Amino acid sequence: MHRLVLIRHGESEWNKANLFTGWTDVDLSEKGLQEAAEAGIALKEAGFQFEYAYTSFLKRAIKTLNIVLEKMDQLWIPVEKSWRLNEKHYGALQGFNKAEMTEKYGPEKIKQWRRSYDIRPESLTDDDERNPALDPRYKNIDDPMAKPHTEALCDTIARIIPYWENVILPKVKSSNDIIIAAHGNSLRGIIKVLKNISDEDIIGLNLPTGIPYVFEFDDNMQLQKDYFLADEEKVKALMDAVANQGNKK
Amino acid sequence: MHRLVLIRHGESEWNKANLFTGWTDVDLSEKGLQEAAEAGIALKEAGFQFEYAYTSFLKRAIKTLNIVLEKMDQLWIPVEKSWRLNEKHYGALQGFNKAEMTEKYGPEKIKQWRRSYDIRPESLTDDDERNPALDPRYKNIDDPMAKPHTEALCDTIARIIPYWENVILPKVKSSNDIIIAAHGNSLRGIIKVLKNISDEDIIGLNLPTGIPYVFEFDDNMQLQKDYFLADEEKVKALMDAVANQGNKK
Repeated sequence: MHRLVLIRHGESEWNKANLFTGWTDVDLSEKGLQEAAEAGIALKEAGFQFEYAYTSFLKRAIKTLNIVLEKMDQLWIPVEKSWRLNEKHYGALQGFNKAEMTEKYGPEKIKQWRRSYDIRPESLTDDDERNPALDPRYKNIDDPMAKPHTEALCDTIARIIPYWENVILPKVKSSNDIIIAAHGNSLRGIIKVLKNISDEDIIGLNLPTGIPYVFEFDDNMQLQKDYFLADEEKVKALMDAVANQGNKK
Repeated sequence: MHRLVLIRHGESEWNKANLFTGWTDVDLSEKGLQEAAEAGIALKEAGFQFEYAYTSFLKRAIKTLNIVLEKMDQLWIPVEKSWRLNEKHYGALQGFNKAEMTEKYGPEKIKQWRRSYDIRPESLTDDDERNPALDPRYKNIDDPMAKPHTEALCDTIARIIPYWENVILPKVKSSNDIIIAAHGNSLRGIIKVLKNISDEDIIGLNLPTGIPYVFEFDDNMQLQKDYFLADEEKVKALMDAVANQGNKK
């Protein structure tokens, strides 16, 4: 049996303040740190022994992973970080309040930008200080996809698929337990492939923060089952909370 | 210019209790966490921008590195962990109090085991639960040096040299800033090579915990200077404290 665990980072300071985050490198909130610790304890109790871990270039995912591994006493395993696992880039919306942007652009536009598969939010300009080409962590990467000025979900998924297929999937096949700590939209890309979900339906998947999502495969890499490592009611309440974001100032 | 920073992990729970530690995976003490945070702040203020980081399989070094990188806002850089950077294995002494072992074996023997270049402490037996061959992190590694039952400093250095020459040194040459977070004896191995120190003299080098030790090279990889990132008196006091360990119960 091969197991893959996906975990969306715990609550960040900007989730709490209801700001569009994207590639902005904001920290976990106190609650987010706590969520990560609880996830680590749950994974340890469930007997996971990870052989590899993957995460993004953003500290809210990296710290979630570090806390999980520390609680499991597995800090020593190899960790690979990739910009390809970053959150969807939110373009010119990054750093602005979701409710205020809804007042400015109208709820329809915001809903399209947040919840459509292929409509991109307003783009950053080249000289915007938020341009990834100006950030030391991206500027030396050749691939232009590492320097987005905005992204629709389809763009985010397009940069994740090659990394999933060429790097992570071979490790899942050759290992027992693998973990990916990342973001709501980058994990949507992987779940879309794993469960063969349509472009329309993937938008409706609202992953709860900090809850390990386990995929079990047989030796032919056929998906046998997938489940959250938490009780069903808690997962449902958390998913509903994510779906209802955007109304808070 | 190329810069290499070596940092010995902050105080561990067993440093505090004066126990022989070696490959035992003990945690940092509160003071150790604080030392790591201060090192990160000092490195940030000095303008280091690391491109790669290396550490051991032991959490006191990994956590020191993670805290340093977090304080520098550089958690996203690639980190490689290797058992070759682990502390010297202390054989059958691991887990015992230094002063009590001095009473049991006599101060001469303990001094030989702690401070000679090539005399090994009493070995673990194969069925000892401390045998690295029984630990998931080492048991699948082919190299027998990854499963020591005891080590003299010469053994520790012998396993570090190939990693230094084949993995780290090429990265130092091709980068501006590199950091290694490791242990008193594994760092002695690297410093011995860098400064061409004799077998006798390397034993007298008592690296302070948690103080960044910087090596600067020109483009031909000639060592230009080396210095601790702290004031001289503080470094001297810390080195003396390390040299005088072993008397406390």
